[in-house]
Amino acid sequence: MRAVQVGICGLGTVGSGVFNVLTRNLSCINNRSNCEINIRQIGARRDNPLCDTSNIDTTVDIFDVAKNPEIDILVELIGGTTVAYDLVMTALKNNKHVVTANKALIAEHGMEIFATAASRGLVVAYEAAVAGGIPVIKALREGLSANQVNWVAGIINGTTNFILSEMDNKGRDFNDVLAEAQEKGYAEADPTFDVEGIDAAHKLVILASIAFKMPLTLDGLFTDGITKLEPQDVAYARDLGYVIKHLGIARQTDQGVELRVHPTLVPQKSMIAGVNDVSNAVMINADAVGTTLFYGPGAGAEPTASSVIADIVDVARSIESSPESKVNALGSPISKLEQPTIIAIDEIETSFYMRFSALDKPGVLSDITKIMADSGISIEAIVQKEQPAGEDYVNVIIITNVTQERLLNTAVEHIENLETVRDTIKFIRVEHLDQ
Amino acid sequence: MRAVQVGICGLGTVGSGVFNVLTRNLSCINNRSNCEINIRQIGARRDNPLCDTSNIDTTVDIFDVAKNPEIDILVELIGGTTVAYDLVMTALKNNKHVVTANKALIAEHGMEIFATAASRGLVVAYEAAVAGGIPVIKALREGLSANQVNWVAGIINGTTNFILSEMDNKGRDFNDVLAEAQEKGYAEADPTFDVEGIDAAHKLVILASIAFKMPLTLDGLFTDGITKLEPQDVAYARDLGYVIKHLGIARQTDQGVELRVHPTLVPQKSMIAGVNDVSNAVMINADAVGTTLFYGPGAGAEPTASSVIADIVDVARSIESSPESKVNALGSPISKLEQPTIIAIDEIETSFYMRFSALDKPGVLSDITKIMADSGISIEAIVQKEQPAGEDYVNVIIITNVTQERLLNTAVEHIENLETVRDTIKFIRVEHLDQ
Repeated sequence: MRAVQVGICGLGTVGSGVFNVLTRNLSCINNRSNCEINIRQIGARRDNPLCDTSNIDTTVDIFDVAKNPEIDILVELIGGTTVAYDLVMTALKNNKHVVTANKALIAEHGMEIFATAASRGLVVAYEAAVAGGIPVIKALREGLSANQVNWVAGIINGTTNFILSEMDNKGRDFNDVLAEAQEKGYAEADPTFDVEGIDAAHKLVILASIAFKMPLTLDGLFTDGITKLEPQDVAYARDLGYVIKHLGIARQTDQGVELRVHPTLVPQKSMIAGVNDVSNAVMINADAVGTTLFYGPGAGAEPTASSVIADIVDVARSIESSPESKVNALGSPISKLEQPTIIAIDEIETSFYMRFSALDKPGVLSDITKIMADSGISIEAIVQKEQPAGEDYVNVIIITNVTQERLLNTAVEHIENLETVRDTIKFIRVEHLDQ
Repeated sequence: MRAVQVGICGLGTVGSGVFNVLTRNLSCINNRSNCEINIRQIGARRDNPLCDTSNIDTTVDIFDVAKNPEIDILVELIGGTTVAYDLVMTALKNNKHVVTANKALIAEHGMEIFATAASRGLVVAYEAAVAGGIPVIKALREGLSANQVNWVAGIINGTTNFILSEMDNKGRDFNDVLAEAQEKGYAEADPTFDVEGIDAAHKLVILASIAFKMPLTLDGLFTDGITKLEPQDVAYARDLGYVIKHLGIARQTDQGVELRVHPTLVPQKSMIAGVNDVSNAVMINADAVGTTLFYGPGAGAEPTASSVIADIVDVARSIESSPESKVNALGSPISKLEQPTIIAIDEIETSFYMRFSALDKPGVLSDITKIMADSGISIEAIVQKEQPAGEDYVNVIIITNVTQERLLNTAVEHIENLETVRDTIKFIRVEHLDQ
């Protein structure tokens, strides 16, 4: 069997997972790759006590690995977009194939990286960059290659999904759950990347690029996090038959492509509503296949390693074949990608959940429903929630039918101007994901 | 771009789907395959009014296609295991790659077909043979190639799932729903293949072979259909927090491999319990990734076409590369497959749902629970269902903890011998699918 030499850069959580799974399952991995895969060198600032690397050439300078003439595939697991970028570009310039789990790197520098790789007949594989152990890049790029994709919607950040699951199942407060998530290691000390939706945005851009044959770009993408979600909205949503999930949504419409990450009400009975804790799931709706869903662990050492090693196997197996016989990084060749119009958030069409506080007296609901009607918005449900004793105001919850967000904004403004309505109106988008 | 010539044999439901999707999406399919894919010839006994084949060379003799020297890939969509077998073998002997949606053919003749293909450096691709439009062969064989698989469990027959969904959601009777399914075209005039689990068995064997590196064989596989399921069991299961699904289960244990298809209680809260109507879903649990689930349409013209065309794209893209650089038909090379012990059904260990009719008088439950304890079976729940007025007997429902089926059989025999127990005991296996 042909031998393929692998260099691993980074021996943190994912790196140790890759090292240990590859070592443990090497014989069946070799069978599946039709190669003998060797870990030729490891580049890491320090040892990881979880890995016995005593028989392996190690270096503290990861660029040694990128330049090592014996190495065929460099595995980038250091994260970030600065050193990792330099490392990957150095590896490519030294004619190494690259496997990475780095979503930020691919989302921000993917076009340059893929172009460099393509010009040298090299592969940059990145299954682990989206949805951890779920082979969704492969599913979308190869398994569904016959299709025109209509939309992709996914729970693609485990941290936010853990927080929302706890808020939903136990009625807990955002900050309270976040603190626990940090304690358990599900959330970083600085959780901004996760809870503000930036990590999900990186992953969504990658999925959208493959789905809609467009270059990778974060431009125009709308992002809203979960930090302002209140337990009462989670509870009201459930009363109305919905669950709140933090979704990345990319949709092709006649006007262009929607790219948005935000809390979303989804029907309780939908498959995606049942995705709890740190799990991820990606739904893909496409013209031939209809709706599919891919579910599994979105993070963790060994789930991520599963995807990293699957990429190593793919690259190793076909390492001697021609560039045209390999899967294009984004499905279609770079030259065929086209930038669509990215639809502004107030131009999107969806349903909405609205909550506000209104005086509990005759005529108030009629004023509100008149404003909605005048704005051209039809209402699916309107519910008035009992006020606590002695309180003059009640919570009013509305679920609208599908409407343009711009129309909703106008209605919101008019309702907020009513003297009978207190404070600002809270709204959350609703998706049925059934078409 | 390199041109690749495709011959389609069979222009029924799936054939017309393949023709229409390929024609409709040809330009992006070509981009993804790095080839120009041409439908060079169609072999079909008659035209299909759903397809405009006026510009295509057609023949009523499918063997013309298999022998046509211009054709690179033969797509077998005629079904069955007789003519289809001859067709595929003829195509291989004429040095054509083969794409097929035929689960029975692969399950029964796969070893010979794959060996013939391998000896000639040809590919036989069969994504559409399992779970219709869900790219689960690709997920298991490539996406999870780093893993040792622990178990696979799936809803892999749309007809039975439609019947069970209706029985569950509407309290309907098996025969009543079957008649509707036949009317809607979800079930064949002779539904045996579906409702007795033979179709699911074919698919399970394929999944198990890839998962456990074993040759394809139906030997030792246990199959039980859904024809004897009663609405009361569906209802009692739901009362206890379960849903009854018809699952194919393959599990690696220290003793060998379990291969079984049967009605199964799964927890209502599990993802797979939410798979309704003609949808399919396959769960895969493996050492590195943990548990994943792949959901989508299990049948239908265009979903199946989605998988057939994905195979065409894969074969076409790598048509000029070496055999070693291609994915092995069953993941591992044929020479590395090993036949494990297939565990007899009475040796498997799982939980059970039991229902029987017992006299409603003091001491009866105590007799029953004593028999269970004496048989070494612990009980998770025991419920006595109210009898209709004037009836001396009550329905007793038991959910056991995990036990060996042989022990359960002994307990069943002893309980049936009690004078206070009427008729035979009905039991259904229970799987929690959480480990």
